[in-house]
Amino acid sequence: MAKAAQTAIKPTRSEDYPEWYQQVIKAADLAENSPVRGCMVIKPWGYSLWENMQRALDDMFKATGHSNAYFPLLIPMSYLEKEAEHVEGFAKECAVVTHHRLEPDPNGGLRPAGKLEEPLIIRPTSETIIGATYAKWVQSYRDLPILINQWANVMRWEMRTRMFLRTAEFLWQEGHTVHATSQEAIEETERMVNVYADFAENWMAMPVIIGSKTPAERFPGAIETLSIEAMMQDRKALQAGTSHFLGQNFSKAQEIVFQAENGEREFAWTTSWGVSTRLVGALIMTHSDDDGFVLPPRLAPTQIVILPIYRDQSQRAEVIEYVESLRKELSEQTYAGSSVRIEIDDRDMRGGEKKWYHVKRGVPIRVEVGPKDIEKNAVFVGRRDQAKSFGISRSEFVTSIDKILTEMQQSLFDRALELREKNTVEITNEKDFRDFFTPKNEDQPEVHGGFANCFFSSEEQLDSLLKELKVTIRCIPRDADEQTGTCFLTGEKTTQKAIFAKAY
Amino acid sequence: MAKAAQTAIKPTRSEDYPEWYQQVIKAADLAENSPVRGCMVIKPWGYSLWENMQRALDDMFKATGHSNAYFPLLIPMSYLEKEAEHVEGFAKECAVVTHHRLEPDPNGGLRPAGKLEEPLIIRPTSETIIGATYAKWVQSYRDLPILINQWANVMRWEMRTRMFLRTAEFLWQEGHTVHATSQEAIEETERMVNVYADFAENWMAMPVIIGSKTPAERFPGAIETLSIEAMMQDRKALQAGTSHFLGQNFSKAQEIVFQAENGEREFAWTTSWGVSTRLVGALIMTHSDDDGFVLPPRLAPTQIVILPIYRDQSQRAEVIEYVESLRKELSEQTYAGSSVRIEIDDRDMRGGEKKWYHVKRGVPIRVEVGPKDIEKNAVFVGRRDQAKSFGISRSEFVTSIDKILTEMQQSLFDRALELREKNTVEITNEKDFRDFFTPKNEDQPEVHGGFANCFFSSEEQLDSLLKELKVTIRCIPRDADEQTGTCFLTGEKTTQKAIFAKAY
Repeated sequence: MAKAAQTAIKPTRSEDYPEWYQQVIKAADLAENSPVRGCMVIKPWGYSLWENMQRALDDMFKATGHSNAYFPLLIPMSYLEKEAEHVEGFAKECAVVTHHRLEPDPNGGLRPAGKLEEPLIIRPTSETIIGATYAKWVQSYRDLPILINQWANVMRWEMRTRMFLRTAEFLWQEGHTVHATSQEAIEETERMVNVYADFAENWMAMPVIIGSKTPAERFPGAIETLSIEAMMQDRKALQAGTSHFLGQNFSKAQEIVFQAENGEREFAWTTSWGVSTRLVGALIMTHSDDDGFVLPPRLAPTQIVILPIYRDQSQRAEVIEYVESLRKELSEQTYAGSSVRIEIDDRDMRGGEKKWYHVKRGVPIRVEVGPKDIEKNAVFVGRRDQAKSFGISRSEFVTSIDKILTEMQQSLFDRALELREKNTVEITNEKDFRDFFTPKNEDQPEVHGGFANCFFSSEEQLDSLLKELKVTIRCIPRDADEQTGTCFLTGEKTTQKAIFAKAY
Repeated sequence: MAKAAQTAIKPTRSEDYPEWYQQVIKAADLAENSPVRGCMVIKPWGYSLWENMQRALDDMFKATGHSNAYFPLLIPMSYLEKEAEHVEGFAKECAVVTHHRLEPDPNGGLRPAGKLEEPLIIRPTSETIIGATYAKWVQSYRDLPILINQWANVMRWEMRTRMFLRTAEFLWQEGHTVHATSQEAIEETERMVNVYADFAENWMAMPVIIGSKTPAERFPGAIETLSIEAMMQDRKALQAGTSHFLGQNFSKAQEIVFQAENGEREFAWTTSWGVSTRLVGALIMTHSDDDGFVLPPRLAPTQIVILPIYRDQSQRAEVIEYVESLRKELSEQTYAGSSVRIEIDDRDMRGGEKKWYHVKRGVPIRVEVGPKDIEKNAVFVGRRDQAKSFGISRSEFVTSIDKILTEMQQSLFDRALELREKNTVEITNEKDFRDFFTPKNEDQPEVHGGFANCFFSSEEQLDSLLKELKVTIRCIPRDADEQTGTCFLTGEKTTQKAIFAKAY
């Protein structure tokens, strides 16, 4: 192995990708594990990124006619039982509230007391409790559609957790809509997966594939699940958002019934759709490098950090005055329709340490300003997506800031798309399929091919092979032309074609 | 009793205040009780009001140097035991998670399974879990202060609940800060209660009194609790926000220790402060009337609703074109630093019904536009704070919108302040005190005097009298001059003077 260059993150991606991921989170100060099993603390830098994601998504939800509301955290156990597939999907990982107070334990400490008549579940998702409420709201077709979103915390008692990607508690939004017709509900399902794709590509700079899930991979209780799938830098897939057409399954379980225009009583058609703090994990794994986090400019809490450089207090006054005026001038610039977000970091800290602090946190642009730069009316600029820094005149920098940020956002997207395209192949037989998903190097058991596009005739037939290789069907891409081919396993003729990958 | 005028809300405030409150919430479509005991559903109109409150408060927190973060929902039971007063205060109303999955019950249905080694509590407040995290973050005085806020749901298993005012689950923000010195922490405690007072008075148009709580009324574990207290229209007090100086109590329980500049290891000084969805209840009870909700313009999700009036489709085109251009013109106006928020309601509904829909929801300004108004280039305006509507030229309306909204915001504040001043008295003896707090009318057991300013020498001595009359000490006002007087109960000389009231 060639001698590694100095990097801020140890291990590097090629040395140990899963551990690199944890170290990026630590170095960027995004989150940490909490004393509560499987739950994390989202630290201010990580949370401000989530806030930016929330704001952008919330604006998109409102622009597509949705309002926010809030429903209870706790769900009566009996509600979960009403939809058979749904309970099957969630009963195994529920946090159950059984008591409503604590009392002194005769052996010391406290013990639960006040047993509830019916146990309550901390919501793993809210179809059941929201559906029960909608059943009361809906009487007539005039009450439809209902277009509501909720920002909330949910809990799934996962056995193996990983920060942002899979945690027992996570933050998310869940849209829940009710419609008078099947077609309207299907249109809503598609509208929202398109919103997610738009957000992923244009805000996160993360290329995604929109597709439908095969029956085994659908949301428990859904007729159809649409998802957006992205390729991470280790070539594994990450499902970044899902939108479910629930048909009349939940409205039948919960009696969401309305009087149609023709006077008939009909079951309503429902959808649900969600994205979560998992997107932060997706963002980390799409763009970060061996020096830490890399933030796409549109979502960066700070887009430009200015680092004043001076030797002593006499120089300080002049430098601070200069950077304050630079900040003011920059803040009057806009990028992607908003004022540019700038921070001056004048903490008492060694220059190198301070620079690396911001590199590791992924701030897109660092600007160093010292007395010599002021003399030349110039600034020294470091771009997070390039290794080399460069000097530039102050005025040129200020007027080109929108251009620089736009270019950075695009270059992150292009790089991620290139990775995906380079690692996506068409596979037509079992041998190539096995080969593609078999790691070549014992030290790197995770490294494999990437995305395989394959014709297949039946999901059931593939089951044992996919389990053996730890591969899943990610989706049947939306935009694929109707084609005929032969199943890579059986050679049968088929029109079904899907993306296969290892996945988070 | 005189014959009541027609009102949209039955009963009226004077007939049955508590029931009037519930009916306003229903008529304004703010919230409803959920199937889960003590938990409510916050409906879109109520939630959009909460979103506006959140945004204004969040900006104020950020302007005072705070960042948001997120900590776990669940707290290990043992954490609660560490601070003795704290556990005393919260153990009796905790939702306790004891299991992590559900399994089929041999008798049918499901039952809890997977018993946890240690029960987990749904946070009633987060001092313990956040403090345990801060203990890891704080090493040196250089790590201080920590200035963090969290927007979250919390749960307190209250026996008697009332929508917004007291619910088992509620939404709130909780600030948690850590400081190197007592003085800094006290300054923070005061800064934040001032932020709350600013928000209450300038956004909610709700006058408040800032004061400190007496020992019996403090937050469990606090050295000092500052609060803002408001008078509702039934003359009861409502505590609308609290800010706690926790001294070193929690840092000792949780070992938040830092190395000071002089090298000594010291316990840190902490604060916490919060407001909740209770503010929505406060807003309802401060301004609403017998026709429904009244929203202060600064917080109204919709500030102006335009109601197009037409007889048939041929008129419709002209009217809609006119109101669209009016909307555009109005949206270019600003009020209190933001664009005016306008809605056009063109639903197919009878005119009277539609008007009352918006009256009951508290929209500050209704504008009716029909063909005759268009002919005169005028609009017909109804202000929610006035009974009578008036015609006004379009251009005058547009240019005076900022003035009208400013005037409405002020008039709501003035009216609330007048109510408080009219119902606040100085009381110097027990007889007058008893008289003031004794209802005069059997039909109206809640109607009593209001706020009583009284000198008192000891909280303990008053205990039985206050319990008998269901009166509490609200606060020792901040801005009171140092005075000497005599205790209204014992006649002893004292400098302690507080506000006494019945309270929510």
